[in-house]
Amino acid sequence: MPGKLGLIAGGGTLPRRIIEACHAQGRAVFVVALDGQTDAATLEGDVPHIRIRMGAAGKAVKALRGAECEELVLAGPVRRPSFSELRPDLTAARFLSRVGAKALGDDGLLRAVMDLLEEEGFRVIGVHDILGDILASEGVWGREQPDEDAWRDIRRGLQIAGDLGRQDIGQAVVVQQGIVLGVEAIEGTDRLLQRCGELRRPGPGGVLVKIKKPGQDDRADLPTVGRHTVEGAAKAGLRGIAVEAGATIVMEPDDLVAAADAAGLFVVGVAVDKG
Amino acid sequence: MPGKLGLIAGGGTLPRRIIEACHAQGRAVFVVALDGQTDAATLEGDVPHIRIRMGAAGKAVKALRGAECEELVLAGPVRRPSFSELRPDLTAARFLSRVGAKALGDDGLLRAVMDLLEEEGFRVIGVHDILGDILASEGVWGREQPDEDAWRDIRRGLQIAGDLGRQDIGQAVVVQQGIVLGVEAIEGTDRLLQRCGELRRPGPGGVLVKIKKPGQDDRADLPTVGRHTVEGAAKAGLRGIAVEAGATIVMEPDDLVAAADAAGLFVVGVAVDKG
Repeated sequence: MPGKLGLIAGGGTLPRRIIEACHAQGRAVFVVALDGQTDAATLEGDVPHIRIRMGAAGKAVKALRGAECEELVLAGPVRRPSFSELRPDLTAARFLSRVGAKALGDDGLLRAVMDLLEEEGFRVIGVHDILGDILASEGVWGREQPDEDAWRDIRRGLQIAGDLGRQDIGQAVVVQQGIVLGVEAIEGTDRLLQRCGELRRPGPGGVLVKIKKPGQDDRADLPTVGRHTVEGAAKAGLRGIAVEAGATIVMEPDDLVAAADAAGLFVVGVAVDKG
Repeated sequence: MPGKLGLIAGGGTLPRRIIEACHAQGRAVFVVALDGQTDAATLEGDVPHIRIRMGAAGKAVKALRGAECEELVLAGPVRRPSFSELRPDLTAARFLSRVGAKALGDDGLLRAVMDLLEEEGFRVIGVHDILGDILASEGVWGREQPDEDAWRDIRRGLQIAGDLGRQDIGQAVVVQQGIVLGVEAIEGTDRLLQRCGELRRPGPGGVLVKIKKPGQDDRADLPTVGRHTVEGAAKAGLRGIAVEAGATIVMEPDDLVAAADAAGLFVVGVAVDKG
């Protein structure tokens, strides 16, 4: 039986699922809740936790050590703070002076945070180490199949999303008949889909392509899809969704596939070349 | 005195300015107005013109030849059509079968259109060949100067915009304190600014960087800024705007600078390395 798990909880429902998985396994868990980021439902019931603001790294480390956590997991999206709203404590300030404040815009920052936590003696694991079957499988998931035109849009989307990711900008792109309708930066996939619905062209709908940033650490901020992604894509008039197999978190896969079948959308997990 | 000018008129006020410049020079002009794209004010007065839909390339060529135009200019933004809304005539269909329908998503398409027009015996010139002083100058235009932090955001923006442009995605990006707030695809700069206003972080505001796509032909679809760009940037809480010197169309520069000074924004023309 592994020891107590430290859970650094971003937004959404994923942190709650990890808590429930720990409960099911009889594993103790201690939550670090981030002000303005962690969903209230995450802490429902009697979950041991501490609430901190983003810049209070020293307080977090101290609490995790006090709770005798050895393994840590980072789960759920975290809105990137700007330097001026971070108000770093001493530990965070030392950390920032080492990685450079400019790293705030960077995924490199998340990796540096994990490196710091490991230096402090913790072992950082990925969400999929706890929720074994949560990553996207390869192939077509539901009833609908992408046709050759859709595959063309998927391939262009994969290429662009790879470039965006290498620039540490975003994970998602929408392509319709070769036209790039929209590119995700920090606004998130929901807003991207919303505006692409307004920008869509007549004729066969577009495709949402969402992949991990090349070189991104598997232990933080993996791309996520769920039923609401399918619903957003359907509303935007898209024909389907392509995600990176083995590197995308799939929330409630049965619901997702049912929603896709009902809306007539394809959902496909594609292997992404790591070149 | 050069012969009659053929003006293929996209949206906005730029085509009208070209007509007025021709009138001032005593030069005859014939306008090809594109359904759903050309601004109504462009054709005010007694401007000789033909209205066509986007796919009617053959009709456009015939009309331009009938009007005895030798030089052509493409001015004003054109919303990229999808294949299914294009309904190509024979000339357009032949053209598309040559360049490939997938080129519809591409700037390569605009270049191919210009190549086609030149093969048909026309000479295609740029907007700046008619409106001599319309391109952005290098240096700071108004009272405000970018500080070192702003320059850092500008440099990151230039790098990202260059990559976006090479992928033929868009021309503009907003960066705040190293964080990429938004990236332009086909939605245009106004909508980009609008959403970046909602996504802005506390602290020093971001920077809009807008440049020509690397390799983009100077004779079509140059990035454009005007007073409303400054107003949109101010509303979004940005600190300033950086555009590509020598490759950005500046509408009403005096109004633009006055608006920037009034709002406390800097506007700077930067030389972009074409490497």
